Amino acid sequence: MNLIILNKSDFIEDTERVQIQDHRLDHIRNVNKPSVGDELRVGLINGNIGCGRITRIEEGKIEMDVALDREPPAPLQLTLILSMARPRVFKRVLSQVTAMGIKKIIIINSYRVEKSFWKSPVLEEESLNKYLIRGLEQGQDTIVPEVLVRPLFKPFVEDELPDIIKGTLPFVAHPYTSEQCPYNIGSPVTLAVGPEGGFIPYEAKKLIECGFSAVHLGERTLHVESAISSLISRLM
Amino acid sequence: MNLIILNKSDFIEDTERVQIQDHRLDHIRNVNKPSVGDELRVGLINGNIGCGRITRIEEGKIEMDVALDREPPAPLQLTLILSMARPRVFKRVLSQVTAMGIKKIIIINSYRVEKSFWKSPVLEEESLNKYLIRGLEQGQDTIVPEVLVRPLFKPFVEDELPDIIKGTLPFVAHPYTSEQCPYNIGSPVTLAVGPEGGFIPYEAKKLIECGFSAVHLGERTLHVESAISSLISRLM
Repeated sequence: MNLIILNKSDFIEDTERVQIQDHRLDHIRNVNKPSVGDELRVGLINGNIGCGRITRIEEGKIEMDVALDREPPAPLQLTLILSMARPRVFKRVLSQVTAMGIKKIIIINSYRVEKSFWKSPVLEEESLNKYLIRGLEQGQDTIVPEVLVRPLFKPFVEDELPDIIKGTLPFVAHPYTSEQCPYNIGSPVTLAVGPEGGFIPYEAKKLIECGFSAVHLGERTLHVESAISSLISRLM
Repeated sequence: MNLIILNKSDFIEDTERVQIQDHRLDHIRNVNKPSVGDELRVGLINGNIGCGRITRIEEGKIEMDVALDREPPAPLQLTLILSMARPRVFKRVLSQVTAMGIKKIIIINSYRVEKSFWKSPVLEEESLNKYLIRGLEQGQDTIVPEVLVRPLFKPFVEDELPDIIKGTLPFVAHPYTSEQCPYNIGSPVTLAVGPEGGFIPYEAKKLIECGFSAVHLGERTLHVESAISSLISRLM
């Protein structure tokens, strides 16, 4: 937790003072181990970033006076289209790409996605939110990404995707192609990443027909987490 | 396990036939679910890659006839100098960078490394080997990386590092610098990555004095795993 994310409800009415009473309290106590007068990095969810000076430490709460004087980092101009992953991996990827500054994440189906993944409670709003916030805390950002869930591949690609990619360069990670992923392309990007094992040829073909360029990262097969950060960091 | 790594001892004397009897057997049974005649990707440790055709499936063993006709992928021309990490994270990083094709990994100390990490059994040879092999299985490679452990920062940097970086461009990931990490530099690289929280100024200064360029990946703080794959993929 490199940044403590504050909610509007943490503020004591009409003041600059916040009271922290939930799981964030444990983190602050155990990791920051603060004394009264210490300053911590804080940010208001979907708002500014700044500094919180601790004014009171009690058994079940901590109080801080906060000054939120800086804007959060600029968003990464990259829309991520991601095949649903094994829930354990999905949670990590969600936090990871949020920490990297992505603001739009679209979860899609693909032939190689196990059907059971779609029943996972990880896709419920509360859970999504938890891993997005974790990513914001890691990346020191406050703007919660938008997450869309689209469990039908063909209607999504045919009906929604053409509008989504407008004004962006669209790439699909596809190991069975000859184009190496380009570097530093200096334009907004839409990036589609398939499941472990990749998109099947039909899916890759649909994406290419829609305007996507198929790119690879070399002969080696990377875990989805490693592949995603590699692709993002190279393109942007 | 995208590649089954074979050892010389798996071969039945003077033949092209191997017998698999250990934990790899469980993986093959549960994930590949093979029948006699099926072909699996195999590679001989520190040797060639090829194909294994299953000739026999019994209760406690599987036999394959193997043809090892391809060289493993070319090594990545990058030496990684990595601060010792929390053992749970260290294991994953070791597999991850092995999957990416790195062949020389040097584990160093740094002020922000918790002393207890150095006592972890993860640094024992058998354990290191386990996570390196896991990376090779993921990345479909056979060449085991060399791992050096150097628990004293100053003597390592002063006495060994000048020789290590010869013929490479050396970079240190350092968030408190103005240079953005460059793209696709087309030369062998030495990359030094500090612990969560980064190298302290003294350490960064020592590395810069040795010839390293300090580079960052932007305002956001990334987890070490995400930072490492981002840096490697951007530089190489």
